[in-house]
Amino acid sequence: MNQHDPARTYRAAVIGAGSGGLTVAIGLTGFGHEVALIESGPVGGDCTNVGCIPSKALLHAAAAGHTDPFGTVRAKRDGLRDREDAEMVDHEMIHLVRGRGRLTSRKGPHVVEVTGPDGSTVEVVAENVVVCAGSRPVDFGIDGLDDEHLLTNESLFELEEVPSKVVLVGGGAISLEMATAFRDLGSAVEIVEMQDRLIATEDPLVSSTIEAVLRERGVVVHTGTTIHRFDSTTAHLANGATIDDVDKVLLAVGRRPRLDDLGLDAAGVTVTKTGITADSFGRTNVDGIYAVGDVTGDTATTHGANSIARRTIRAIALPKLPKIGGARAHPNAVFSRPQIASVGMSVDEVDALPSIGRRRYVVQIADLDRAYTDDVAHGIAIVDAERFTGKILRAAIVAPTAAEIIGMFTLAIDHGIGLRKIFATVHPYPTYALLVGTVADEFASDTFSTLPQEWWAMARGRVARRLKR
Amino acid sequence: MNQHDPARTYRAAVIGAGSGGLTVAIGLTGFGHEVALIESGPVGGDCTNVGCIPSKALLHAAAAGHTDPFGTVRAKRDGLRDREDAEMVDHEMIHLVRGRGRLTSRKGPHVVEVTGPDGSTVEVVAENVVVCAGSRPVDFGIDGLDDEHLLTNESLFELEEVPSKVVLVGGGAISLEMATAFRDLGSAVEIVEMQDRLIATEDPLVSSTIEAVLRERGVVVHTGTTIHRFDSTTAHLANGATIDDVDKVLLAVGRRPRLDDLGLDAAGVTVTKTGITADSFGRTNVDGIYAVGDVTGDTATTHGANSIARRTIRAIALPKLPKIGGARAHPNAVFSRPQIASVGMSVDEVDALPSIGRRRYVVQIADLDRAYTDDVAHGIAIVDAERFTGKILRAAIVAPTAAEIIGMFTLAIDHGIGLRKIFATVHPYPTYALLVGTVADEFASDTFSTLPQEWWAMARGRVARRLKR
Repeated sequence: MNQHDPARTYRAAVIGAGSGGLTVAIGLTGFGHEVALIESGPVGGDCTNVGCIPSKALLHAAAAGHTDPFGTVRAKRDGLRDREDAEMVDHEMIHLVRGRGRLTSRKGPHVVEVTGPDGSTVEVVAENVVVCAGSRPVDFGIDGLDDEHLLTNESLFELEEVPSKVVLVGGGAISLEMATAFRDLGSAVEIVEMQDRLIATEDPLVSSTIEAVLRERGVVVHTGTTIHRFDSTTAHLANGATIDDVDKVLLAVGRRPRLDDLGLDAAGVTVTKTGITADSFGRTNVDGIYAVGDVTGDTATTHGANSIARRTIRAIALPKLPKIGGARAHPNAVFSRPQIASVGMSVDEVDALPSIGRRRYVVQIADLDRAYTDDVAHGIAIVDAERFTGKILRAAIVAPTAAEIIGMFTLAIDHGIGLRKIFATVHPYPTYALLVGTVADEFASDTFSTLPQEWWAMARGRVARRLKR
Repeated sequence: MNQHDPARTYRAAVIGAGSGGLTVAIGLTGFGHEVALIESGPVGGDCTNVGCIPSKALLHAAAAGHTDPFGTVRAKRDGLRDREDAEMVDHEMIHLVRGRGRLTSRKGPHVVEVTGPDGSTVEVVAENVVVCAGSRPVDFGIDGLDDEHLLTNESLFELEEVPSKVVLVGGGAISLEMATAFRDLGSAVEIVEMQDRLIATEDPLVSSTIEAVLRERGVVVHTGTTIHRFDSTTAHLANGATIDDVDKVLLAVGRRPRLDDLGLDAAGVTVTKTGITADSFGRTNVDGIYAVGDVTGDTATTHGANSIARRTIRAIALPKLPKIGGARAHPNAVFSRPQIASVGMSVDEVDALPSIGRRRYVVQIADLDRAYTDDVAHGIAIVDAERFTGKILRAAIVAPTAAEIIGMFTLAIDHGIGLRKIFATVHPYPTYALLVGTVADEFASDTFSTLPQEWWAMARGRVARRLKR
């Protein structure tokens, strides 16, 4: 149904066909609404084209030793993109309008001006507009770095050959994942991170754990410095060190919302430097204008965009329902090896709480029997909880399956299940997931010791205890 | 403190130093009680010596391509056993009494007669006796099968060389794990299962899924038959088929409780053919006599024994506390590749419920984006839930990380969190754990469709939907 009807007022115009936009568009059609979906690039957005899908495919291809890793990745990416594109073109209730969308009105029905690839413009009229314009990598010029040596998450997956040496600029999620992949592919890898530790959004113990793993695997980590200058094949760091024989430099220093040329001013939408201001239903300050996903700066993940998108669908399709129900806990995940995952309050939010009412429980993954059988030396679980109730404030895990386990903490946070209740939960042995039980045992041994008879000793069961001496 | 004091009445005598016995003994010392721990074999029981630890170590060594897989396994097993043994010998409050324990009295304080390795006997007097005697493999004679070709879970880890062809008798957990390991090691593998499908305690969809994986990996599966006769190197099946050039035959047809020579009759303990009858606190019909673990027939796992053991500690150490608090959901796990895990009611229990009040939600793992990036073709999640509440009756998963994910369902069952509530939970993308969200979306699309406005369509978010066409 790829035919835009200029006379029609759609229930919604969705700007951007990435993770957030696709969810909103398809979700609204389920309620019987026709939707205009406006996209200037390939359907699927960053996730399909330059993010989740190719990066996870590369991690897999590298670990599995595929002979043409980048070709494998591109084939998967293209296959998915083509399917998603065809689905939108063929959709009975979605009009895919190819071009750049731009808000023009402060009041509904809103008019979105779409400039197509040939420069022609059409107007899309809709009761609601959902801005899902995504984000772009932070622009970070390095003096002397030419296009031959530069990689971004957009050009990365176009490589034909495995580079001999890669410098990763930034120490966040993309960098940790690509350090894992490139080492598996046989590249020499060095990371340059401006802050004093890797993945600084997480707890320092998380940083030191993943850094220990990467160093053991031969990755050179430079923290507290930047690349000052690039010269031929040498990176000169601000701290005076140099990295020679550099083949590629991957810029992965974060993302910023894609706000330009969206007509946000014309529409009167409130924007800060972090992105469009929107509530947990995606509502901006302007009636009928919503913002979902990276463009808000509140999330930079597909699952984050999806979660808010589902609430936006509810707000648009069922406007009379009260807008209650807090947003759920949003987990973070990094698919390095080991994986890193966290959920709950931020590290800073926890640190800002009075220390007297909370405790921190730390479990070394190497103390789990599964780590013993599987030769896993590094890993950690850190849980901040209220002192007596065991209410979970934040959980962070570095473990082979961290992203698969974090859901137990997400569920516990969403539903107020504290460590006191989790204490009796039975976990299969031997798994990494047993860390959840071990954390609950730490809580019990800490808290129950205030009871007579050292009740806490009950926690000292074999499953939790073995190898922990 | 390895000095038994015949004049002393211990708070507890624990018969068997496996998963259950170690938990009980160590747990009670935490309450200040001295314990006699009676064990005729190596400390650690089956788990450390011939079960969980060596089998998981072999799975890892095989997948990682270790050059001396069995040597690696033995080194890990011995290292752990020696540490556990030393810990018991050195324990300040545990008297390790080496020998076979046998109940002799119907009333407390109970007298346990221990026959040492040299045939001498000592008497151990204790207020409570906890029988943790474990289980042994079901004895299954095959006509013509000689010791050279026979393997059990006890002799398996003593192998020096990788067998060229292994026949696994039985299609349960041990067999599925060892089929995975031996194929990774390069052995030809055939499975002979008497029932009409593998792992018949699980849902038929679980069986067909794991069978498809194994067949694709070159494992030959014979169901509905047995080995009738073994002749030289040929196994003759009851259905007329033959398996030639057999190197080893591993018997893995289940376990039965180790009940003989425990003095259960003398003590008046009720025993059925499945094991000692005990409640969820381990209490038998005789005051002061408890049974924990495999010997009860209620569980055959380390985590199952551990869970009941923790409740037994509570019953013995805090006898005045009311014995309330139902046993928690006990998950099952098989560490094949992919893993298999389940929790909740048994398949038969669910089938016995009226069909009108329940629904079944099935998710193909191949529909998850993580499976797409990781080339995973087979896998399934099956959740039986109450029709409108979404209360989870049973969940079963076949997926690479099934045993790491099942905890979300365990927690949900323990705390009454139904699919209606889980619907809004945010799961990291792309993971296998997203199957939990996808199941909740299936529930919502089924249940919410009874509402006007097709509320259910909200479920159709990108994360859940992608690739699912």
